[in-house]
Amino acid sequence: MMSVKIIKVMEDVLGANDVLARKNRERLDRNGTLAINIMSSPGAGKTSFILQTMARLKQEISIAVIEGDIACSIDAEKVSEQGIPAVQINTGGGCHLDANMLDKALNVLDLKGLELLLIENVGNLVCPAEFNLGEHKRVMLLSLPEGDDKPHKYPLMFSTSDVVLVNKIDLLPYLHFDLDAFRRAVTGLNPDVKIMPVSCTTGEGLETWLDWLRSEISRRKGVKA
Amino acid sequence: MMSVKIIKVMEDVLGANDVLARKNRERLDRNGTLAINIMSSPGAGKTSFILQTMARLKQEISIAVIEGDIACSIDAEKVSEQGIPAVQINTGGGCHLDANMLDKALNVLDLKGLELLLIENVGNLVCPAEFNLGEHKRVMLLSLPEGDDKPHKYPLMFSTSDVVLVNKIDLLPYLHFDLDAFRRAVTGLNPDVKIMPVSCTTGEGLETWLDWLRSEISRRKGVKA
Repeated sequence: MMSVKIIKVMEDVLGANDVLARKNRERLDRNGTLAINIMSSPGAGKTSFILQTMARLKQEISIAVIEGDIACSIDAEKVSEQGIPAVQINTGGGCHLDANMLDKALNVLDLKGLELLLIENVGNLVCPAEFNLGEHKRVMLLSLPEGDDKPHKYPLMFSTSDVVLVNKIDLLPYLHFDLDAFRRAVTGLNPDVKIMPVSCTTGEGLETWLDWLRSEISRRKGVKA
Repeated sequence: MMSVKIIKVMEDVLGANDVLARKNRERLDRNGTLAINIMSSPGAGKTSFILQTMARLKQEISIAVIEGDIACSIDAEKVSEQGIPAVQINTGGGCHLDANMLDKALNVLDLKGLELLLIENVGNLVCPAEFNLGEHKRVMLLSLPEGDDKPHKYPLMFSTSDVVLVNKIDLLPYLHFDLDAFRRAVTGLNPDVKIMPVSCTTGEGLETWLDWLRSEISRRKGVKA
């Protein structure tokens, strides 16, 4: 085996975002709204996951959705077709949402009585993890076809998420994915994380996720009261 | 259907990178080396694709690989185990390679007689497309599980690639992926692009890719001579 040369390149991480994130958080808290920042690679299934969550909860809870995309409004239209208020943020090339964008979206949403705000970030396992929006919880999806080695390559995303959903679990028979190795890698980075295998195609595992979400919404209302 | 509100956020794209990219390109040209920038989402199969390409070509062509990752050197080690020179660039949080990083990597590589340089970018469908490294050709992988709608959401990546490889084509029976709609969307953005369905698991389609690569290597040698 030949020796591998390694070059380290340091990059500044923009930090000015945090003041505005705190403002967003206070506004959400005053309103009793639970805000969830949903992150993943492109195509891991964020939009399907949001649509499935909405369909199962919209009779009992008041929901709005913010869709972050570089271009287009396909996803916001899908949400809107189900009668849920949707705001599309187009970042115009930007690879992540930031607190300023959430502030703008909160300004156009009707927040009155809103219990749950689902924020779909731009599809990217890197930069979204660095930008606090003011959300209460971070949820990431890792889909099976992406492989079980991703916690080693994108450690910040895994170490700052409250829930890691292992999506497309229905594809397990057709892929090499070591779920135990994946669990060990994730909990090694983040011992308190909740790991939930789900399939938005078959519905498997979604009840576990919804139970967690219901309990967080109740807790948030307690914060307001 | 409710109406969707759209917020446009403009971002500056750093452009200072281009001078250094031109320098890299001239250096590669003087040396007669073909440099390929390989981009995709996390887990779309870049590393497997590079390993398969290397295994099939290393007897006939001299190859080196540059691996771009935020953290870790797993991929460079896999390359190195096959006896191919590998340089790992760790971006330390950065979500893409840039021309400065390639310059540093070229400084530590032995370029003498090198015919093919494969550069694996950070797993990300957004920012890598904005940063010219000085490469001759851009190749992107879109894996089937990511879905056929990705050209609409990440248009820059699709419109600036010379080759789009549709990877994990062996999973077609288990997924909803409309290959014709995908082709139409990609060629709508980029009429000259070559689209090649491949599987790094079964080997399907790899000969088409290798034939393209061989002809580009020959042409590059012609440029030098």
